[in-house]
Amino acid sequence: MAVSTPESVVEPGPLAKYDTGEAMCPYRLVLEHLTSRWGVLVLIELLERPYRFSELRRAIGRVSEKMLTQTLQTLERDGLVHRDAKPVIPPRVDYSLTDLGREAAQQVRALAVWTERRMDAVQQARDAYDAAKRQR
Amino acid sequence: MAVSTPESVVEPGPLAKYDTGEAMCPYRLVLEHLTSRWGVLVLIELLERPYRFSELRRAIGRVSEKMLTQTLQTLERDGLVHRDAKPVIPPRVDYSLTDLGREAAQQVRALAVWTERRMDAVQQARDAYDAAKRQR
Repeated sequence: MAVSTPESVVEPGPLAKYDTGEAMCPYRLVLEHLTSRWGVLVLIELLERPYRFSELRRAIGRVSEKMLTQTLQTLERDGLVHRDAKPVIPPRVDYSLTDLGREAAQQVRALAVWTERRMDAVQQARDAYDAAKRQR
Repeated sequence: MAVSTPESVVEPGPLAKYDTGEAMCPYRLVLEHLTSRWGVLVLIELLERPYRFSELRRAIGRVSEKMLTQTLQTLERDGLVHRDAKPVIPPRVDYSLTDLGREAAQQVRALAVWTERRMDAVQQARDAYDAAKRQR
Protein backbone atom coordinates (compact mmCIF):
# COMPACT_ATOMS: atom_id res chain seq x y z
CA MET A 1 0.00 0.00 0.00
CA ALA A 2 1.58 3.26 -1.08
CA VAL A 3 1.57 6.04 1.47
CA SER A 4 1.55 9.76 1.02
CA THR A 5 1.82 12.65 3.38
CA PRO A 6 -1.40 14.65 3.71
CA GLU A 7 -1.44 17.35 1.04
CA SER A 8 -3.49 19.72 3.08
CA VAL A 9 -3.07 19.78 6.81
CA VAL A 10 -5.82 21.46 8.74
CA GLU A 11 -4.39 23.68 11.43
CA PRO A 12 -5.71 22.84 14.85
CA GLY A 13 -8.11 25.43 16.09
CA PRO A 14 -10.71 25.84 18.78
CA LEU A 15 -13.71 23.60 18.48
CA ALA A 16 -17.00 25.38 18.89
CA LYS A 17 -18.41 25.05 22.37
CA TYR A 18 -21.18 22.74 21.24
CA ASP A 19 -18.63 20.07 20.37
CA THR A 20 -18.78 18.84 23.92
CA GLY A 21 -22.11 20.18 25.08
CA GLU A 22 -24.21 18.48 22.46
CA ALA A 23 -23.14 15.09 21.32
CA MET A 24 -25.45 15.01 18.32
CA CYS A 25 -24.49 18.31 16.70
CA PRO A 26 -24.07 18.01 12.91
CA TYR A 27 -20.34 17.44 12.85
CA ARG A 28 -20.67 14.52 15.27
CA LEU A 29 -22.80 12.70 12.71
CA VAL A 30 -20.19 13.20 10.00
CA LEU A 31 -17.47 12.05 12.40
CA GLU A 32 -19.54 8.90 12.93
CA HIS A 33 -19.71 8.33 9.17
CA LEU A 34 -15.93 8.75 8.88
CA THR A 35 -15.18 6.43 11.77
CA SER A 36 -17.84 3.80 11.18
CA ARG A 37 -16.46 0.31 10.74
CA TRP A 38 -16.84 0.28 6.97
CA GLY A 39 -16.40 4.02 6.51
CA VAL A 40 -12.81 3.82 7.77
CA LEU A 41 -11.95 0.96 5.45
CA VAL A 42 -13.64 2.48 2.39
CA LEU A 43 -11.83 5.78 2.86
CA ILE A 44 -8.45 4.10 3.35
CA GLU A 45 -8.89 1.90 0.27
CA LEU A 46 -10.03 4.78 -1.92
CA LEU A 47 -6.98 6.81 -0.87
CA GLU A 48 -4.99 4.38 -2.98
CA ARG A 49 -7.04 4.54 -6.17
CA PRO A 50 -10.59 4.49 -7.56
CA TYR A 51 -12.43 1.18 -7.32
CA ARG A 52 -15.34 -0.53 -8.96
CA PHE A 53 -17.96 -1.72 -6.51
CA SER A 54 -17.15 -5.42 -6.71
CA GLU A 55 -13.40 -4.77 -6.49
CA LEU A 56 -13.89 -2.58 -3.44
CA ARG A 57 -16.01 -5.23 -1.79
CA ARG A 58 -13.30 -7.84 -2.35
CA ALA A 59 -10.59 -5.46 -1.08
CA ILE A 60 -12.47 -4.74 2.14
CA GLY A 61 -13.65 -8.27 2.75
CA ARG A 62 -16.44 -9.52 5.00
CA VAL A 63 -18.70 -6.59 4.13
CA SER A 64 -22.15 -7.40 2.80
CA GLU A 65 -23.28 -5.84 -0.47
CA LYS A 66 -25.99 -3.98 1.42
CA MET A 67 -23.66 -2.51 4.04
CA LEU A 68 -21.11 -1.42 1.45
CA THR A 69 -23.85 0.20 -0.64
CA GLN A 70 -25.16 2.08 2.40
CA THR A 71 -21.67 3.19 3.45
CA LEU A 72 -20.88 4.48 -0.04
CA GLN A 73 -24.22 6.29 -0.29
CA THR A 74 -23.65 8.00 3.04
CA LEU A 75 -20.14 9.08 2.07
CA GLU A 76 -21.38 10.20 -1.35
CA ARG A 77 -24.12 12.32 0.20
CA ASP A 78 -21.56 13.89 2.55
CA GLY A 79 -19.53 14.91 -0.51
CA LEU A 80 -16.62 12.60 0.30
CA VAL A 81 -17.03 9.94 -2.36
CA HIS A 82 -17.74 10.42 -6.06
CA ARG A 83 -19.88 7.82 -7.80
CA ASP A 84 -19.35 7.57 -11.51
CA ALA A 85 -21.89 5.36 -13.29
CA LYS A 86 -20.74 4.65 -16.83
CA PRO A 87 -23.58 4.22 -19.38
CA VAL A 88 -22.24 0.93 -20.72
CA ILE A 89 -23.46 -2.63 -20.84
CA PRO A 90 -22.88 -4.31 -18.48
CA PRO A 91 -23.18 -1.30 -16.13
CA ARG A 92 -19.95 -0.09 -14.63
CA VAL A 93 -19.77 2.08 -11.53
CA ASP A 94 -16.54 3.57 -10.26
CA TYR A 95 -16.03 5.09 -6.83
CA SER A 96 -13.34 7.62 -5.99
CA LEU A 97 -12.60 10.23 -3.35
CA THR A 98 -13.53 13.86 -3.91
CA ASP A 99 -10.99 16.49 -2.81
CA LEU A 100 -12.94 16.81 0.43
CA GLY A 101 -12.97 13.04 0.83
CA ARG A 102 -9.22 12.86 0.30
CA GLU A 103 -8.67 15.29 3.15
CA ALA A 104 -10.99 13.28 5.40
CA ALA A 105 -9.39 9.99 4.42
CA GLN A 106 -5.92 11.29 5.24
CA GLN A 107 -7.04 12.23 8.75
CA VAL A 108 -8.77 8.90 9.26
CA ARG A 109 -5.77 7.04 7.94
CA ALA A 110 -3.41 8.89 10.29
CA LEU A 111 -5.56 7.79 13.22
CA ALA A 112 -5.70 4.20 11.96
CA VAL A 113 -1.93 4.10 11.41
CA TRP A 114 -1.31 5.54 14.88
CA THR A 115 -3.60 2.93 16.43
CA GLU A 116 -1.96 0.06 14.64
CA ARG A 117 1.53 1.27 15.54
CA ARG A 118 0.66 1.56 19.21
CA MET A 119 -1.13 -1.75 19.61
CA ASP A 120 1.77 -3.28 21.56
CA ALA A 121 1.59 -0.49 24.14
CA VAL A 122 -2.18 -0.87 24.37
CA GLN A 123 -1.86 -4.62 24.83
CA GLN A 124 0.74 -4.17 27.60
CA ALA A 125 -1.55 -1.72 29.36
CA ARG A 126 -4.45 -4.16 29.15
CA ASP A 127 -2.38 -7.02 30.55
CA ALA A 128 -1.28 -4.83 33.48
CA TYR A 129 -4.85 -3.62 34.07
CA ASP A 130 -6.25 -7.14 34.06
CA ALA A 131 -3.48 -8.44 36.34
CA ALA A 132 -4.09 -5.63 38.85
CA LYS A 133 -7.81 -6.38 38.74
CA ARG A 134 -7.24 -10.04 39.51
CA GLN A 135 -5.13 -9.16 42.55
CA ARG A 136 -7.86 -7.07 44.16
CA MET B 1 -10.50 25.88 24.50
CA ALA B 2 -6.74 26.21 24.14
CA VAL B 3 -5.24 24.37 21.21
CA SER B 4 -1.83 22.92 20.76
CA THR B 5 -0.05 21.35 17.82
CA PRO B 6 0.53 17.62 18.23
CA GLU B 7 3.86 17.09 19.94
CA SER B 8 4.50 13.75 18.35
CA VAL B 9 3.33 13.14 14.84
CA VAL B 10 3.22 9.55 13.72
CA GLU B 11 4.64 9.18 10.25
CA PRO B 12 2.24 7.56 7.85
CA GLY B 13 3.28 4.05 6.96
CA PRO B 14 1.77 0.97 5.40
CA LEU B 15 -1.05 -0.63 7.33
CA ALA B 16 -0.73 -4.36 7.72
CA LYS B 17 -2.74 -6.31 5.20
CA TYR B 18 -5.28 -7.42 7.78
CA ASP B 19 -6.45 -3.84 8.22
CA THR B 20 -8.85 -4.29 5.38
CA GLY B 21 -9.20 -8.04 5.20
CA GLU B 22 -10.39 -8.52 8.76
CA ALA B 23 -12.57 -5.84 10.21
CA MET B 24 -12.32 -7.10 13.78
CA CYS B 25 -8.55 -7.28 14.13
CA PRO B 26 -7.29 -5.90 17.47
CA TYR B 27 -6.54 -2.39 16.28
CA ARG B 28 -10.06 -1.97 14.94
CA LEU B 29 -11.42 -2.42 18.44
CA VAL B 30 -9.10 0.26 19.81
CA LEU B 31 -10.07 2.55 16.95
CA GLU B 32 -13.69 2.02 17.95
CA HIS B 33 -12.88 3.01 21.53
CA LEU B 34 -11.13 6.18 20.33
CA THR B 35 -13.92 7.16 18.00
CA SER B 36 -16.90 6.14 20.11
CA ARG B 37 -19.31 8.97 20.82
CA TRP B 38 -18.10 9.53 24.37
CA GLY B 39 -14.54 8.40 23.75
CA VAL B 40 -13.97 11.30 21.35
CA LEU B 41 -15.32 13.84 23.81
CA VAL B 42 -13.46 12.45 26.83
CA LEU B 43 -10.15 12.47 24.97
CA ILE B 44 -10.65 16.02 23.69
CA GLU B 45 -11.58 17.34 27.14
CA LEU B 46 -8.67 15.61 28.84
CA LEU B 47 -6.27 17.13 26.31
CA GLU B 48 -6.95 20.42 28.06
CA ARG B 49 -6.33 19.30 31.65
CA PRO B 50 -7.08 16.55 34.20
CA TYR B 51 -10.66 16.35 35.43
CA ARG B 52 -12.52 14.94 38.38
CA PHE B 53 -15.33 12.61 37.40
CA SER B 54 -18.19 14.99 38.17
CA GLU B 55 -16.44 17.91 36.45
CA LEU B 56 -15.82 15.81 33.37
CA ARG B 57 -19.43 14.73 33.26
CA ARG B 58 -20.56 18.36 33.37
CA ALA B 59 -18.03 19.37 30.72
CA ILE B 60 -19.21 16.68 28.32
CA GLY B 61 -22.89 17.04 29.03
CA ARG B 62 -25.74 14.64 28.31
CA VAL B 63 -23.67 11.60 29.23
CA SER B 64 -25.05 9.26 31.86
CA GLU B 65 -22.89 8.37 34.84
CA LYS B 66 -22.88 4.77 33.70
CA MET B 67 -21.77 5.53 30.14
CA LEU B 68 -19.02 7.87 31.30
CA THR B 69 -17.78 5.27 33.79
CA GLN B 70 -17.69 2.61 31.09
CA THR B 71 -15.93 4.91 28.63
CA LEU B 72 -13.29 5.85 31.18
CA GLN B 73 -12.73 2.22 32.17
CA THR B 74 -12.28 1.18 28.56
CA LEU B 75 -9.80 3.99 27.92
CA GLU B 76 -7.98 3.22 31.18
CA ARG B 77 -7.65 -0.44 30.29
CA ASP B 78 -6.29 0.54 26.86
CA GLY B 79 -3.60 2.58 28.66
CA LEU B 80 -4.90 5.93 27.39
CA VAL B 81 -6.38 7.36 30.56
CA HIS B 82 -4.86 7.41 34.04
CA ARG B 83 -7.22 7.08 37.01
CA ASP B 84 -5.91 8.54 40.23
CA ALA B 85 -8.05 7.71 43.28
CA LYS B 86 -6.98 9.85 46.21
CA PRO B 87 -7.39 8.18 49.65
CA VAL B 88 -9.34 11.08 51.11
CA ILE B 89 -12.82 11.60 52.52
CA PRO B 90 -14.93 12.28 50.57
CA PRO B 91 -13.26 10.15 47.86
CA ARG B 92 -11.63 12.08 45.05
CA VAL B 93 -10.82 10.58 41.67
CA ASP B 94 -8.90 12.44 39.00
CA TYR B 95 -8.64 11.41 35.37
CA SER B 96 -5.84 12.44 33.05
CA LEU B 97 -4.29 11.32 29.78
CA THR B 98 -1.26 9.06 29.76
CA ASP B 99 1.49 9.87 27.23
CA LEU B 100 -0.06 7.27 24.95
CA GLY B 101 -3.50 8.80 25.50
CA ARG B 102 -2.20 12.24 24.64
CA GLU B 103 -0.92 10.97 21.30
CA ALA B 104 -4.28 9.32 20.61
CA ALA B 105 -6.24 12.38 21.68
CA GLN B 106 -4.24 14.62 19.36
CA GLN B 107 -5.06 12.41 16.38
CA VAL B 108 -8.72 12.23 17.35
CA ARG B 109 -8.87 15.97 17.87
CA ALA B 110 -7.30 16.64 14.47
CA LEU B 111 -10.05 14.58 12.88
CA ALA B 112 -12.75 16.32 14.91
CA VAL B 113 -11.37 19.76 14.05
CA TRP B 114 -11.19 18.86 10.36
CA THR B 115 -14.78 17.63 10.41
CA GLU B 116 -16.07 20.73 12.11
CA ARG B 117 -14.18 23.03 9.73
CA ARG B 118 -15.56 21.28 6.66
CA MET B 119 -19.19 21.07 7.76
CA ASP B 120 -20.23 23.78 5.31
CA ALA B 121 -18.81 21.83 2.39
CA VAL B 122 -20.49 18.66 3.65
CA GLN B 123 -23.81 20.45 3.98
CA GLN B 124 -23.55 21.86 0.45
CA ALA B 125 -22.82 18.38 -0.88
CA ARG B 126 -25.85 17.00 0.93
CA ASP B 127 -28.13 19.69 -0.43
CA ALA B 128 -26.92 19.00 -3.96
CA TYR B 129 -27.30 15.24 -3.49
CA ASP B 130 -30.83 15.56 -2.15
CA ALA B 131 -31.83 18.00 -4.91
CA ALA B 132 -30.50 15.63 -7.61
CA LYS B 133 -32.37 12.76 -6.01
CA ARG B 134 -35.63 14.68 -6.04
CA GLN B 135 -35.25 15.40 -9.77
CA ARG B 136 -34.92 11.73 -10.72
